[in-house]
Amino acid sequence: MALGTKPTLAIVGATGAVGTVMIDIINGRGSVPWGEIRLIASPRSAGKKITVRGAENTVVALSPEAFDGVDIALFDVPDEVSAEWAPIAVERGAIAVDNSGAFRMDPEVPLVVPEVNAAQVHERPKGIIANPNCTTLSMMAALGALHHEFGLRELVVSSYQAASGAGQEGVDRLYAEVAAVAGKQVGVRGGDVAEALTAAGLPEETPFKAPLALNVVPWAGSRKDDGWTSEELKVRNESRKILGIPELKVSATCVRVPVVTTHSLAVHATFAQDVPVEQARRVFEAQPTVVLQDDPERMAFPTPAAVVGEEPTYVGRIRQALDFPNTLDFFVCGDNLRKGAALNTYEIAETLAG
Amino acid sequence: MALGTKPTLAIVGATGAVGTVMIDIINGRGSVPWGEIRLIASPRSAGKKITVRGAENTVVALSPEAFDGVDIALFDVPDEVSAEWAPIAVERGAIAVDNSGAFRMDPEVPLVVPEVNAAQVHERPKGIIANPNCTTLSMMAALGALHHEFGLRELVVSSYQAASGAGQEGVDRLYAEVAAVAGKQVGVRGGDVAEALTAAGLPEETPFKAPLALNVVPWAGSRKDDGWTSEELKVRNESRKILGIPELKVSATCVRVPVVTTHSLAVHATFAQDVPVEQARRVFEAQPTVVLQDDPERMAFPTPAAVVGEEPTYVGRIRQALDFPNTLDFFVCGDNLRKGAALNTYEIAETLAG
Ligand SMILES: NC(=O)c1ccc[n+]([C@@H]2O[C@H](COP(=O)([O-])OP(=O)(O)OC[C@H]3O[C@@H](n4cnc5c(N)ncnc54)[C@H](OP(=O)(O)O)[C@@H]3O)[C@@H](O)[C@H]2O)c1
Ligand SMILES: NC(=O)c1ccc[n+]([C@@H]2O[C@H](COP(=O)([O-])OP(=O)(O)OC[C@H]3O[C@@H](n4cnc5c(N)ncnc54)[C@H](OP(=O)(O)O)[C@@H]3O)[C@@H](O)[C@H]2O)c1
Repeated sequence: MALGTKPTLAIVGATGAVGTVMIDIINGRGSVPWGEIRLIASPRSAGKKITVRGAENTVVALSPEAFDGVDIALFDVPDEVSAEWAPIAVERGAIAVDNSGAFRMDPEVPLVVPEVNAAQVHERPKGIIANPNCTTLSMMAALGALHHEFGLRELVVSSYQAASGAGQEGVDRLYAEVAAVAGKQVGVRGGDVAEALTAAGLPEETPFKAPLALNVVPWAGSRKDDGWTSEELKVRNESRKILGIPELKVSATCVRVPVVTTHSLAVHATFAQDVPVEQARRVFEAQPTVVLQDDPERMAFPTPAAVVGEEPTYVGRIRQALDFPNTLDFFVCGDNLRKGAALNTYEIAETLAG
Repeated sequence: MALGTKPTLAIVGATGAVGTVMIDIINGRGSVPWGEIRLIASPRSAGKKITVRGAENTVVALSPEAFDGVDIALFDVPDEVSAEWAPIAVERGAIAVDNSGAFRMDPEVPLVVPEVNAAQVHERPKGIIANPNCTTLSMMAALGALHHEFGLRELVVSSYQAASGAGQEGVDRLYAEVAAVAGKQVGVRGGDVAEALTAAGLPEETPFKAPLALNVVPWAGSRKDDGWTSEELKVRNESRKILGIPELKVSATCVRVPVVTTHSLAVHATFAQDVPVEQARRVFEAQPTVVLQDDPERMAFPTPAAVVGEEPTYVGRIRQALDFPNTLDFFVCGDNLRKGAALNTYEIAETLAG
């Protein structure tokens, strides 16, 4: 970018669930380092007006020319759109920061959580930087801080994932299902929740494979080998890459719950040394992007419905495992559309802008 | 009991959430070994008529005389009522089978899951047999079968617990909360779910410590030392006692979810030897009270809303841990009011009747 001029930022997918939160975050910042902010989406949205920092901004259709003059392009679009278009943005001179799954495990693409490995934004042979999956991200600020201090060795996690992890379509489906079961005495005989959804005329096709209202669904993502889901393997592989621990032992079970936004995780983490709860608390308190909410006496703990919309990761229910040495159990909540997606991507862009 | 006469069964707490399911189970059985079935509850319910196996039965108030002639008394009442009255039933000549937490960890009281340790019903120095907590019970048929074959060593579990674990009061609250949020775009800003509950006039006092609709609550039971909840310690201590493994390593995180009935658990279980998934499947298939529902290709897995009302424990999502030797990850669903409470108690009574 030319010396003295402010960099141009592009948001590709500005009209989606993540893109909308991205604009929210930019509008909420006291100051931003950007000159022009360009909004890009599919031709369907071209011409749409969106207010960015007080000025009306017109969405343009994705095209190679849309990247002319762009310094940093944030991609909040489906995998296949990122796979095709991030390299084109780079060719046109931009650095691409991608929120999709297209490049995360590419050894030539850094996978960045600024609190954990900010310096890696500068090692980007392909001109692309990847943003982790939302489930992994929701615990990374907390885990990264503990790892730095105590050396993480093993991780057993169970997720409580929100509907918006499946995009706006997921949110709409959950609202429709809640409306369909409300006021009915269902959930007391097998299948009566499903019957209530059918009776209300909801399409059989759902992003969740099973009813989500008054239910939990132990499936997120697509089917991978040996019974694992893509989401569970992402938690394992992305945690290893972000933390720089290729041999980290991980088992994850990913479960969708009827929560609109904010992923929660029950974490059982084993370290290279003993971690007294008091020391863990101090580490969390020293980490500006983590909020400690953990007071059993006052029944203080985080829940997703209270944390949604917040930028930090909330941590509570911290306990030293009674039977496993060097092990902590705790519960984290992180807004999957903020730290889990738009916010982390934006923080990468801020790191690049310096 | 007199030779040749059928034993008399008493149900103490016949009007509660568990007691109601108990009567359901008795009504659904092809045949029962009982002569008289006596229904007992608080004086509030005395005189109430309930149909048991086609005949109208009148609830009597709890009193020492109510146990006269009773051979087996099933207690489905709060802890303090069991603590006081189970010994009185025994004094009057009955065997007490208790569903509350009052006697579970008493070394002179066996804690029985018939599939796992049926023989222990005969070792009852106090005349009392205890039924485990519903969260522990929801996974015990599955875990007991695996332990018998492969030798269980370690257990990391996260629960997805239903509202009815907190009794009828919990169910009523969840229904009221779902009605209060239905049709509203809440769950997108911190606290707006809570505001919707207040706006709908719901009492602030709730059995769940936080909103449960469109939320999950990482707290169940009461506060114990070092940040643990009573529910989490029950999972640890009762699993050890039932399986007869005093040194079993256990970490549990108990989380309430907006499901009406049926508890689910994500289980990470380590054994004394390697457990290929195919062998685990064979063990589950050989266990009559376990249903295997696990076909990733067809997206078949159990969910609580489909399993509610069923007697067996459902198991799915079975995976061999990628990084932990001798370890399986799986997901179980068990109806907390059936196998998790009334059914297991009833099976103990059936075992006693021979
Ligand atoms: N939701 C989450 O929690 C989350 C978290 C982390 C990462 N992510 C990832 O972020 C990405 C966006 O997710 P989302 O939930 O925001 O999805 P979404 O709500 O479906 O939005 C998709 C966006 O991509 C645009 N788009 C789709 N196809 C396009 C095309 N062919 N050309 C140009 N633009 C196109 C859409 O534009 P139109 O409006 O014009 O169709 C829209 O702006 C995905 O890769 C997702 O996996 C999501
Ligand atoms: N819900 C579960 O998932 C679950 C699972 C396992 C174990 N348990 C245990 O089972 C027991 C019953 O639970 P629940 O959920 O069925 O509770 P509930 O719905 O509140 O029912 C309580 C029952 O106890 C009776 N009762 C209360 N106080 C009494 C008194 N002073 N004298 C005589 N009867 C009295 C009530 O009679 P009235 O109707 O006359 O008041 C009612 O029949 C508890 O110990 C609970 O911890 C529950």
